[in-house]
Amino acid sequence: MNVFERMASFEHEQVSFCYDEVSGLKAIIAIHSTALGPALGGCRMWTYEDDEAALKDALRLSRGMTYKNAAAGLNLGGGKAVIIGDPRREKSEQLFRAFGRFVDSFGGRYITAEDVGTACEDMEYVKMETDYVAGLRQTSGDPSPVTAFGVYRGIKACAKWKFGNERLRGRTIVVQGLGHVGMNLVRHLVDEGARVVGSDVFQDRVQAAVEELKIESVEPQKVYDVECDIFAPCALGAVINDNTIDRFRCSVIAGAANNQLEEPRHAELLEKRGILYAPDFVINAGGVVNCSVEFESGGYDRNKAYSKASMIYDRLMQIFEIAQREKTTTHKAAELLAEDRIRKVTGLKRIWSAR
Amino acid sequence: MNVFERMASFEHEQVSFCYDEVSGLKAIIAIHSTALGPALGGCRMWTYEDDEAALKDALRLSRGMTYKNAAAGLNLGGGKAVIIGDPRREKSEQLFRAFGRFVDSFGGRYITAEDVGTACEDMEYVKMETDYVAGLRQTSGDPSPVTAFGVYRGIKACAKWKFGNERLRGRTIVVQGLGHVGMNLVRHLVDEGARVVGSDVFQDRVQAAVEELKIESVEPQKVYDVECDIFAPCALGAVINDNTIDRFRCSVIAGAANNQLEEPRHAELLEKRGILYAPDFVINAGGVVNCSVEFESGGYDRNKAYSKASMIYDRLMQIFEIAQREKTTTHKAAELLAEDRIRKVTGLKRIWSAR
Repeated sequence: MNVFERMASFEHEQVSFCYDEVSGLKAIIAIHSTALGPALGGCRMWTYEDDEAALKDALRLSRGMTYKNAAAGLNLGGGKAVIIGDPRREKSEQLFRAFGRFVDSFGGRYITAEDVGTACEDMEYVKMETDYVAGLRQTSGDPSPVTAFGVYRGIKACAKWKFGNERLRGRTIVVQGLGHVGMNLVRHLVDEGARVVGSDVFQDRVQAAVEELKIESVEPQKVYDVECDIFAPCALGAVINDNTIDRFRCSVIAGAANNQLEEPRHAELLEKRGILYAPDFVINAGGVVNCSVEFESGGYDRNKAYSKASMIYDRLMQIFEIAQREKTTTHKAAELLAEDRIRKVTGLKRIWSAR
Repeated sequence: MNVFERMASFEHEQVSFCYDEVSGLKAIIAIHSTALGPALGGCRMWTYEDDEAALKDALRLSRGMTYKNAAAGLNLGGGKAVIIGDPRREKSEQLFRAFGRFVDSFGGRYITAEDVGTACEDMEYVKMETDYVAGLRQTSGDPSPVTAFGVYRGIKACAKWKFGNERLRGRTIVVQGLGHVGMNLVRHLVDEGARVVGSDVFQDRVQAAVEELKIESVEPQKVYDVECDIFAPCALGAVINDNTIDRFRCSVIAGAANNQLEEPRHAELLEKRGILYAPDFVINAGGVVNCSVEFESGGYDRNKAYSKASMIYDRLMQIFEIAQREKTTTHKAAELLAEDRIRKVTGLKRIWSAR
């Protein structure tokens, strides 16, 4: 494992291996970029096979956060932490407090949050040792409603671009996954008069949505075949793959799930099929937007979070224009937008100030 | 390269890989322990063959600093930085300022200084970006006189233990290496009336010492064969090895060089030959002692540095007693002293204070 070679290939700033004998903590904190501000990114806990696998994940995920935060227009860089261990059996107060001490040692250069394998309760222990943890119950709390609102605004941008009209009344929208984000999204869509078809692998969730919101439903394995205007993936990653690409019967794919494209080339295939794709890391940025408000002067304010998440509409319009102008996919255009912003901020002339 | 396995085997806290694309900086900052305080240790620049070799060096050297600082009674932990690059061709303001920014990002948890391959001038660039750099000209400056004074005091402790009398008048002392530290040491010895035999691979240094201080001299290759009371290695490392071990004609080995023992077992062989060995990392601690005064309230004060370096006498007496009591080598006894201090400070009861 040649660490510097890997870092150089994706321009990572810093990778820190943190070890605590007493608690057994083995964590990698990867900081991809702090060009725009402190590196914000969650803490994943996973039974990685070896250091190599953990490093690879930390490097990949931290870079993703740079793009997400940059494209969202936040004053935040990209980072991510991974803890090597079994989240079902190896969690303890000691472990997360030891992790919190390491986070604190970065002095705010890295801000952590919950992620796959970690929960709000774990972050309470982290908080005992550092202020650089976001998304606690008493601060910005559950981000799902804000994420869902951002996705809703993003769907409207897609409708505007694709159909010339952002109104969703009468449109058929398939929502794949009826978890916290999916359900909140469905509420917005139903409120506006859209025809929603919901799907989930958990039957009780589907039943609850059908009863409460009077939506239609479809079995999970048939979800890709539903004739609709908009397909909203709000569950698994990699749903846009070789098996599904020809099945989609929609004009737009726009949803909350992470890593929707199995590979970048699937964005090109969508393009060829004439399907407008809302880059996942842009449309689902409501969560980090929500976190970011905690670090603004005046502290957290949910209205501010909604107002900033609402801007996802404008971001997507900008990205669709770039894609059109540069004759590239919307996914690539979103990356260009992020890179351009980082380059421009980095390139600002330095002027000395006494403050 | 399994990073965590290596870290666990020597209980390292943190290893940070730092990369800066613009300057080409590739640095590893290893923090072995901050149990006693911020990790102090120099920055080495070297053309390491690969990341693996650089990591190995950083881990080894940072651990050595923990023992050195702990045994010296300082409120400092152990760390070390290595920059991968050719010190003759790849130095630049950009490189050292980039390094300084990373040092600064630790917020004082790691304090750097010059070391093999880096110079005072390089540290001036580091200083432009961080306050956490020690040993600059305008602060504690050249540590050699303080290091030499510490070694002089250490030699007196050895004389006291071995000969029952710390006076050096009339004793024959071989000084191997007449650089900054060696020359300063010779002055102290000559002042006290010792008979000094000096040696150096650079003939002009020998000539200067003979002329200025009226000492005797010996060719470098014959230095181990000189009949003497005390042999003071002040140049190369690993001078106590399989080839030299039977040649020493002295009762004491006590000098400023780093890593004098090729392997720990050579300490046992000295013991068997009845030669008293002053553990190098204890007797040569004057340099870090000098640096440490910079970080005390009131700032740097050379008299304070001398007064603290003088305590090396007492440290060594303590170590000789431990070695006698525990029936072990002085080298091992010094490690035990350091480990015991870390354990005791770590084990202090936690009490809450509002400050």
